[in-house]
Amino acid sequence: MTFRARHLLGIEPLGQDEIVALLDRAEIHANEMRDGVTPERRLAGLTQINMFFEASTRTQASFELAGKRLGADVMNMAMGSSSLKKGETLIDTALTLNAMRPDLIVVRHPHSGAVDLLAQKVNCAVLNAGDGRHEHPTQALLDALTIRRAKGRLHRLSIAICGDIAHSRVARSNLLLLGKMENRLRLVGPPTLMPPGISELGVEVFESMEEGLKGADVVMMLRLQKERMDGGYIPSEREYYHRYGLDAEKLAYAKDDAIVMHPGPMNRGVEIDGTIADDINRSVIQTQVEMGVAVRMAAMELLAENLKQANARGAEGIGA
Amino acid sequence: MTFRARHLLGIEPLGQDEIVALLDRAEIHANEMRDGVTPERRLAGLTQINMFFEASTRTQASFELAGKRLGADVMNMAMGSSSLKKGETLIDTALTLNAMRPDLIVVRHPHSGAVDLLAQKVNCAVLNAGDGRHEHPTQALLDALTIRRAKGRLHRLSIAICGDIAHSRVARSNLLLLGKMENRLRLVGPPTLMPPGISELGVEVFESMEEGLKGADVVMMLRLQKERMDGGYIPSEREYYHRYGLDAEKLAYAKDDAIVMHPGPMNRGVEIDGTIADDINRSVIQTQVEMGVAVRMAAMELLAENLKQANARGAEGIGA
Amino acid sequence: MTFRARHLLGIEPLGQDEIVALLDRAEIHANEMRDGVTPERRLAGLTQINMFFEASTRTQASFELAGKRLGADVMNMAMGSSSLKKGETLIDTALTLNAMRPDLIVVRHPHSGAVDLLAQKVNCAVLNAGDGRHEHPTQALLDALTIRRAKGRLHRLSIAICGDIAHSRVARSNLLLLGKMENRLRLVGPPTLMPPGISELGVEVFESMEEGLKGADVVMMLRLQKERMDGGYIPSEREYYHRYGLDAEKLAYAKDDAIVMHPGPMNRGVEIDGTIADDINRSVIQTQVEMGVAVRMAAMELLAENLKQANARGAEGIGA
Repeated sequence: MTFRARHLLGIEPLGQDEIVALLDRAEIHANEMRDGVTPERRLAGLTQINMFFEASTRTQASFELAGKRLGADVMNMAMGSSSLKKGETLIDTALTLNAMRPDLIVVRHPHSGAVDLLAQKVNCAVLNAGDGRHEHPTQALLDALTIRRAKGRLHRLSIAICGDIAHSRVARSNLLLLGKMENRLRLVGPPTLMPPGISELGVEVFESMEEGLKGADVVMMLRLQKERMDGGYIPSEREYYHRYGLDAEKLAYAKDDAIVMHPGPMNRGVEIDGTIADDINRSVIQTQVEMGVAVRMAAMELLAENLKQANARGAEGIGA
Repeated sequence: MTFRARHLLGIEPLGQDEIVALLDRAEIHANEMRDGVTPERRLAGLTQINMFFEASTRTQASFELAGKRLGADVMNMAMGSSSLKKGETLIDTALTLNAMRPDLIVVRHPHSGAVDLLAQKVNCAVLNAGDGRHEHPTQALLDALTIRRAKGRLHRLSIAICGDIAHSRVARSNLLLLGKMENRLRLVGPPTLMPPGISELGVEVFESMEEGLKGADVVMMLRLQKERMDGGYIPSEREYYHRYGLDAEKLAYAKDDAIVMHPGPMNRGVEIDGTIADDINRSVIQTQVEMGVAVRMAAMELLAENLKQANARGAEGIGA
Repeated sequence: MTFRARHLLGIEPLGQDEIVALLDRAEIHANEMRDGVTPERRLAGLTQINMFFEASTRTQASFELAGKRLGADVMNMAMGSSSLKKGETLIDTALTLNAMRPDLIVVRHPHSGAVDLLAQKVNCAVLNAGDGRHEHPTQALLDALTIRRAKGRLHRLSIAICGDIAHSRVARSNLLLLGKMENRLRLVGPPTLMPPGISELGVEVFESMEEGLKGADVVMMLRLQKERMDGGYIPSEREYYHRYGLDAEKLAYAKDDAIVMHPGPMNRGVEIDGTIADDINRSVIQTQVEMGVAVRMAAMELLAENLKQANARGAEGIGA
């Protein structure tokens, strides 16, 4: 049961055993964090570059802290500025960074597939921190670890993912991961916020929260991505909250011990009622953030180990 | 004589002995800096997050250097961007950061009281780097250390604080600290730039620099905060300089060995004449900057020690 | 053969032996980087401040990585914001930073001479990361190291520098360095992009690529600096590419083993054809980036050594 991947570009290429290996490693970090144990500086001497072509305070902070706690030299590139404005292409930026010989590059990009493209051009390990509507693998992994810690297992659970599925890479990566782990998946939201062809994926689709949440172990709310809606129908916030916002009444449809999740940042009073979000008996939203750091530490550690082995094989002439 | 506080939110809650304890610790750092001694990495393995909701190149730089010199993992959050624009509340931001388990959070915020509010929501130590018109405690502490080093004591001095008192958290924190240490405080400035009710605080108030500076050991100039003046009378810079700008003529009213201070950044030719600012026999403005790093090192070190003890007590079940 | 300089402000003040000493040191770093050897943390405990008054993603990243790999505490100052907007002068900024007692300051500034001015006001070592149209010494040094590694020597080479010479500090520093090393220098470009009086500098000037590239060992392309052209004739990109853009046809005029260089970021299809830029048999553009990190590591290391010796002499009272 090992993590074999060279990059972490998405959940799709990962085997079930790789997911479990990564979560197990992250669990160790999560426990150490809880107990105030200073982690070993396993990335000391390695260089991590964060390239966020789309601003994301919390995800960037999580990757930065994860790297720094493991002793990496972490550099944030302000990708909104300079070179790209000067007309440099993504590939040239990638080649330039690669020539500086980093060990790990963390990339967020507004276009689906941009991170995969970049990974093909570099010698180091690449971590996808979210690309367009494609994937956000560390989010799905931190959600998985949060569920596993709360529920004691990560399979045969009934999980409702609710809201703006169409614009959400978080939903996509979660569907892939939770599907691989053999859970019962239910998507809940207005048809206008469902991606086309979703019903063919073997998930159940519901228009009403009442039906969709029935018997759910996990209620995962999504952020209403108004900024990504181009052209189509945009519900009013009030209307949306009335039908799809998670409040005590709607949560009552789920199991009594159902947990409530949200990837943040939250629109309180839009997707979720503030009281539910803050209810420490139901909401695991803060735990998700905490697991985020642990999962990113684990992912960078495992990728760095694989990179080291690949380089060693390369140096010995055994071939990678 | 120990520093007992859990946070450094302002000068108001500090005891005289705590102020002295912090200054004594800072003095050690100041001497080491002067002698080129590399400080011990007492914050190694700890995480410091700087959250500046209001830009401040010099204060942020001072905190960042202080943390890095002590070996902390320092992360700057660009609070102007992303999450907050996405509508996240200050409390949600605080809870998110808290879930990443930092040890120290340094916060600057445009609203008075925002830092106190944030401190109530987190488990780590919080340092106020300036909140609205409320407090800027490290500024008052670095001013105090500068005075103590120049004058050999921090009590029974005649200290004139001049200019825009009304909009200044620097003035407020200084009045509190220098008052606790039993100095004679004089405020000098136009009535429009005095906060209401100031005369009840036991300080002397003067409209003229001649009277206000008479016999002063310390002349502390303030920055004219045009950006914070909403609505009221704004003096022209020329008129202001004529009446309140510190030049050789006005400085002559103070004691012969009076020192000149300014928190920076200076408006040369508005609050202060450039020649006075650069006169190394009178101006201690560069020393203030230097003491800033020393004071922030001391404050973070002492807070980290208190946090560690509190956690140890918590773990032993003795109760915090 | 030692590097004696206190600052790295330009190529002009450097002796030939100093250039060689710096390149030799950089060569060691370049080899270690290639072999995956973690460098010794020779700047541990030292503070490096990057002050970029002009945005430059790649140069700033290169200096930041160089410092971090050597263990320095690196701080980036966002110079576009705060204090300077508040009207603080460059000198006040310099004095403020100096009072924080850094060991190395890296400065980029839009005005020629600003970095020299700043260096006069501080006690630490200053590295010029590009000032106006004046100098960009680390670029010339990394170009030199790239040439030396590709050609086996750095003298008696025929080097053509092509394009927008007038607006280029890169060209200026390269002319100085390559001139000191006794190479045959040729400038190629339209007369409107040549600085006045250039023909008196002992270099050959050509209007046509065919004549200018004849027999060249090195073809160094420059970026068309449209952002720096004020008023004068601006060629259309298409016209420029037709006459001066490096493509296979024009490159054929140079020697068969001529190498192609570009300081980046490239305007593909303006100064250079994408196929040439990516041809690993001819283009050393990625090597330039790699050597950039090595050269900056060497420069900071040597300046830190000189600073330490100067301080030691100062402390012993022998006099600096």
